[in-house]
Amino acid sequence: MTRIAVDAMGGDFGPSVIVRGAVDGARTLNGELLLVGKPGEIEAALGELELAGVSVDIVEANDVIGMDEHPAQAARRKPHSSIVVALQLIKDERADAVVSAGNSGAVMAAALMVLGRVPGIDRPAIASNMPTATSRTLLLDLGAVTDPKPGNLVQFAQMGQAYVQTVLGISNPSIGLLSNGEEPTKGSALVQQVHPLLKRMEGLNFVGNVEGKDVALGTVDIVVTDGFTGNVALKTAEGVATLMVDLLRAEITSTLPRKLAGLFLRPAFRAVRSKLDYAEIGGAALLGVNGAVIIAHGRSNARAIESAVGVAGRSADHDLAGAISRRVNQSAVPIT
Amino acid sequence: MTRIAVDAMGGDFGPSVIVRGAVDGARTLNGELLLVGKPGEIEAALGELELAGVSVDIVEANDVIGMDEHPAQAARRKPHSSIVVALQLIKDERADAVVSAGNSGAVMAAALMVLGRVPGIDRPAIASNMPTATSRTLLLDLGAVTDPKPGNLVQFAQMGQAYVQTVLGISNPSIGLLSNGEEPTKGSALVQQVHPLLKRMEGLNFVGNVEGKDVALGTVDIVVTDGFTGNVALKTAEGVATLMVDLLRAEITSTLPRKLAGLFLRPAFRAVRSKLDYAEIGGAALLGVNGAVIIAHGRSNARAIESAVGVAGRSADHDLAGAISRRVNQSAVPIT
Repeated sequence: MTRIAVDAMGGDFGPSVIVRGAVDGARTLNGELLLVGKPGEIEAALGELELAGVSVDIVEANDVIGMDEHPAQAARRKPHSSIVVALQLIKDERADAVVSAGNSGAVMAAALMVLGRVPGIDRPAIASNMPTATSRTLLLDLGAVTDPKPGNLVQFAQMGQAYVQTVLGISNPSIGLLSNGEEPTKGSALVQQVHPLLKRMEGLNFVGNVEGKDVALGTVDIVVTDGFTGNVALKTAEGVATLMVDLLRAEITSTLPRKLAGLFLRPAFRAVRSKLDYAEIGGAALLGVNGAVIIAHGRSNARAIESAVGVAGRSADHDLAGAISRRVNQSAVPIT
Repeated sequence: MTRIAVDAMGGDFGPSVIVRGAVDGARTLNGELLLVGKPGEIEAALGELELAGVSVDIVEANDVIGMDEHPAQAARRKPHSSIVVALQLIKDERADAVVSAGNSGAVMAAALMVLGRVPGIDRPAIASNMPTATSRTLLLDLGAVTDPKPGNLVQFAQMGQAYVQTVLGISNPSIGLLSNGEEPTKGSALVQQVHPLLKRMEGLNFVGNVEGKDVALGTVDIVVTDGFTGNVALKTAEGVATLMVDLLRAEITSTLPRKLAGLFLRPAFRAVRSKLDYAEIGGAALLGVNGAVIIAHGRSNARAIESAVGVAGRSADHDLAGAISRRVNQSAVPIT
């Protein structure tokens, strides 16, 4: 039975939202749930829920890392924080995967500190499925490495491939390199160095450069980029989705007849919003650390946490770290 | 009377769309229109239009630069192309501004070749107004300089300020530096070098780092970034807007009652789409060259060209190049 440790103290909406989502996720997964944090708050949250058929344990952690604390410092100085204690459960083989909606930099720093890297991996990356028209596109890196070396981007492609193959079950995922134009000659100096490396690498379904629009249109299964650009693309997508919803609402509530038609179309709007809700897409995987670690959005609602627990379970069941290790060491690249 | 030269051969939809938009723009502007390209095709396009009250001349240019030609090579090798001939009209003081929906790299290369840079400017930048909720946010650079030096980004901020002040009439525009987090310590190595330079510069309303979402939400008047990231952000925004429209259409046409409600709400949808149509926002300004040059989107429709002609007219009337020169030389920065 897969054992998922969930940081009950992370997230903008408090333990009750996290705990509810975690319990739902554990039920769906038929897994064992370890809720990590302040026992009193976790018990209060559990008291509101139906727990029949779910295995839940509480693991005490009385410290919390705030969203605005310095990630590496906080991870080092707070060994009793819910984030560090949760990761320690993987290290001690008491849990198979961790989900946290807390300070994402601190989750990454703590994961490196407690679990370490997959052998052969220079820098871990954060990867998330972006909503697209036909399917979902994995975008990485989303902010772990703002100034990667060419070899880092090649490893991101390999890690993304291993993740999509093992966790999502797509056997030969197509991979694009994010650039400011599709032509192979386009791109920053970094992109122009990485393009031929990806092209030469065996066993990689590299289709060439892709553009920002492809992040939304689902042209490829995996989009590889540096953590600075990936973060900007993700947040631009979130911003435009928010803007469109706001503009639509303003137009549709502008007259009474429009309001009535809008009410009738509410399920349609809700379906579109839920497909495009970047807080609901189940969290980002921290690829390249020695364990299955899922970073959920700070604004995660219970559904998002439930979905993140599912991704964490699949990552652990398919031994994601092992798959990444095999993929990277099968064809190693120099990092610089 | 402002004289606008329009490259009639640029754009994905052929001369008739460009010519129609250009004539509408010249009428609104009460300006003088110079249509540059193959006379036969321009005359055919003009034949379909009502020309009363508009001053139109044709300037012969029998060569065309294709969308996929190498920009710098094409600009050099095709002196009789519509792009080069149009820019030459500014140089010869026969036109005050140029609009082209052609190969944007070629427009930039030709503008540098024919017009040269504003004294003191190291690298020109491409700037465009992004649609936002409350107003419009100027985003630059969109692809002119993929690997800028720190001083280039400071000049982008100065040029953006001069543009927004003179052409859009906002006296003290707020300026944000695009990053992967709002904290001053966040960002790529480049962003961390640029942040203190912008902070120190006098006469600049620098509010600090902003994120991708701010490109859509209109938090600041100007967002400054490198051409690689700016291009990715712009195209991601376009992609998400397209995706949302497609998803909405699929949901709303899924049943007959929904279709009827959707038909009723058509004007509301159209209003949102037109606010978010990145092809309709009037073109991007090439800032830092010696003249008023507007690069319209390749997919521009007639309305987009009309709007671009308006922006070109205002840029020329307010002596944009002169304003940029004064701003940059008022507080010069080292580029490296």
